[in-house]
Amino acid sequence: MYIRNRIDLSYDGTEYAGWQIQPDAVTIQQRLQECLLKLTGQKVIVHGSGRTDQGVHARRQTAHFDMPAGSRINLKKALNALLPPDIRIHKAHKEHEQFHARLSASSKEYRYFIWNSDVVPPFVYRYRTRIPYRLDIKKMNIAAGQLAGEHDFRAFSVNPDRPVDSYVREIYKIDVSKHGNEIILKIEGNGFLYKMVRSIAGYLIRVGEGALRPEMTNDILTDKKRTNLFPTAPPKGLFLWRVIY
Amino acid sequence: MYIRNRIDLSYDGTEYAGWQIQPDAVTIQQRLQECLLKLTGQKVIVHGSGRTDQGVHARRQTAHFDMPAGSRINLKKALNALLPPDIRIHKAHKEHEQFHARLSASSKEYRYFIWNSDVVPPFVYRYRTRIPYRLDIKKMNIAAGQLAGEHDFRAFSVNPDRPVDSYVREIYKIDVSKHGNEIILKIEGNGFLYKMVRSIAGYLIRVGEGALRPEMTNDILTDKKRTNLFPTAPPKGLFLWRVIY
Repeated sequence: MYIRNRIDLSYDGTEYAGWQIQPDAVTIQQRLQECLLKLTGQKVIVHGSGRTDQGVHARRQTAHFDMPAGSRINLKKALNALLPPDIRIHKAHKEHEQFHARLSASSKEYRYFIWNSDVVPPFVYRYRTRIPYRLDIKKMNIAAGQLAGEHDFRAFSVNPDRPVDSYVREIYKIDVSKHGNEIILKIEGNGFLYKMVRSIAGYLIRVGEGALRPEMTNDILTDKKRTNLFPTAPPKGLFLWRVIY
Repeated sequence: MYIRNRIDLSYDGTEYAGWQIQPDAVTIQQRLQECLLKLTGQKVIVHGSGRTDQGVHARRQTAHFDMPAGSRINLKKALNALLPPDIRIHKAHKEHEQFHARLSASSKEYRYFIWNSDVVPPFVYRYRTRIPYRLDIKKMNIAAGQLAGEHDFRAFSVNPDRPVDSYVREIYKIDVSKHGNEIILKIEGNGFLYKMVRSIAGYLIRVGEGALRPEMTNDILTDKKRTNLFPTAPPKGLFLWRVIY
């Protein structure tokens, strides 16, 4: 008999090769599974709501795994005692057996953080992409608005390492705002392609600096090919903000 | 001919053995002087407003140094290009020759940050002292209020490695406040003894948890001896907030 558990966790992705286990690199999934092996004496597979890439952070990631019934471990306490301080469990509780961190999710929110000034404070440099010149927030929001809704987002992603059934995704909300030196891109959708948020961030930065016109957005979308007109923004500014069920 | 320069900088103290140069350890002063040697070809001594201990941070530290006249280096840009991202120069400008980072300072503000919850987010664990149980802010402020003003603070410091002329210091402002899971001790004064702010933080934490009564403050002060009733709080929660001239 196994019991399904759900955890809600956060991590600083700086020191990790992303979520997913891979050879010769340290990942978040690996760290969690090592701790669960210590706690249960068994190999436990941890299923995340989705992968995050190397250097990407999670303010809240959700995952599930099955553990032998009857365990009396306080999972939150036990995992936090074993994990390094850059991975933290905020909640751990039992779920019904149909709960699936990836398949049960209805939407996800990501946030991309830009430090729009010449000097990034030492306390946030791991979590901000530095853009020292002025960005036009209004133009960025015009372009962002054209990305909202259901589209084929092939032009705003990077060729994945595995085949994808469909490139159509729906963005429910997208918004760029400025708070002091900080520019925040908030984006919520039903799913995201490989490097899609960072591609959108890279595009909006180019629009904000005036190199691209926001009116181009539809043409780029309908082209369905990734152009080199805009970069994939660096991972350090990206946070998986929350997974919604 | 030499010109006096002032810099205002911030640093994450986590990886450093404090401000002051010492053998076999990496310090902030050392990193700055290494960069200035590269820039000028000369040994430049950097004078800080005061030392910060191993692991203590600075949101703003002020320092001065003399450089050969006629240098056309943009100091802020050049230093930030050479320094690691956990040390940042926010301002650099010329000063009159009487300006002295330590002797010209009229007061200093420190802030001590407590994360008052069981789980510290990965993004701030370097900068917060974790206290998982509830602290009574009202009692902490009663005790803090009795520390305000001019006192002999021997009981709230640690024996220094060098002799001190006087243990009398004046605290201009002291205040404890809570914002969500965060408790902030703000303290401004004309000067601080060795480990004084961390001793006061350690005392106020004991008061907040109910182990010590705030009414004891005067007795401890007049005793003029450090007791083991309260600890020196950890360095990671402490920030030199600003130096006032």
